[in-house]
Amino acid sequence: MTKKFVLTLSLALGMAASATLAGGHIEGAIKARQGQMQLYQHYLGILGGMARGNVDYDATAAQAAADSLLAVASINASTLWPAGSDMDSVEGTRAKAAIWENFPDVGTKSMAMTSGAAAMAAAAGTDLDALKAAMGGVGGACSACHKAYRGR
Amino acid sequence: MTKKFVLTLSLALGMAASATLAGGHIEGAIKARQGQMQLYQHYLGILGGMARGNVDYDATAAQAAADSLLAVASINASTLWPAGSDMDSVEGTRAKAAIWENFPDVGTKSMAMTSGAAAMAAAAGTDLDALKAAMGGVGGACSACHKAYRGR
Repeated sequence: MTKKFVLTLSLALGMAASATLAGGHIEGAIKARQGQMQLYQHYLGILGGMARGNVDYDATAAQAAADSLLAVASINASTLWPAGSDMDSVEGTRAKAAIWENFPDVGTKSMAMTSGAAAMAAAAGTDLDALKAAMGGVGGACSACHKAYRGR
Repeated sequence: MTKKFVLTLSLALGMAASATLAGGHIEGAIKARQGQMQLYQHYLGILGGMARGNVDYDATAAQAAADSLLAVASINASTLWPAGSDMDSVEGTRAKAAIWENFPDVGTKSMAMTSGAAAMAAAAGTDLDALKAAMGGVGGACSACHKAYRGR
């Protein structure tokens, strides 16, 4: 191989490696934030099942689910939403590009989720009525953000 | 339609609905626990990148990642591992059936992850050496559980 070819090849491989790293970074962040949503859904499913009367109210189980929901809502989500991880830029996500153009509003909606989860954690272990009363805050926070920022 | 046909159809639909509910419960739990693993991977990736020198050490970013790792390690995982959600029973998981036959050991390994994450949260914001020293505890807890209980 000529020196020039070797240099070109090295550059090409280097760029491919960088592209892979960047892709892996974006893909990992998308999987991680979708993981956060799956965990939300799981713990809200437990609480919602009790609220709807599909499952008997159990103070210990409700408290554990609500504490877990709050823990999941308390993670640092800023690294889960890197620029370029919107649905117009990559496959496998329904995150609208509008998210990155509306950070103050996204932050407000994110804080509503954390507040809703905190209110649920304070209520869920008390009794079924308290749990039911706290469902609206959490459910409303989910839908507000999905309605504004999740594509189809 | 005859009454008998209507009854048979209702029973069949009822059973299908029950099967879907049961399947949905298992599938949701699997997705949620895989979500927990994705979040582990994400935050450990940030900390590991600094430990390996791929990314400059940043005390604030390291602390945020470590706090998030600990929050994710602190959720109530008992509802994420329902009976019947092992790799011999359903698709889409590498969880060995041995998990459900070794609960004391699984609990010990799970606590090692929480302790490792707590040690990381206490160390990550101090300096790079402290972060590096705490990597072994977390990484070791991941591999110990995966080696024993994750299939290929």
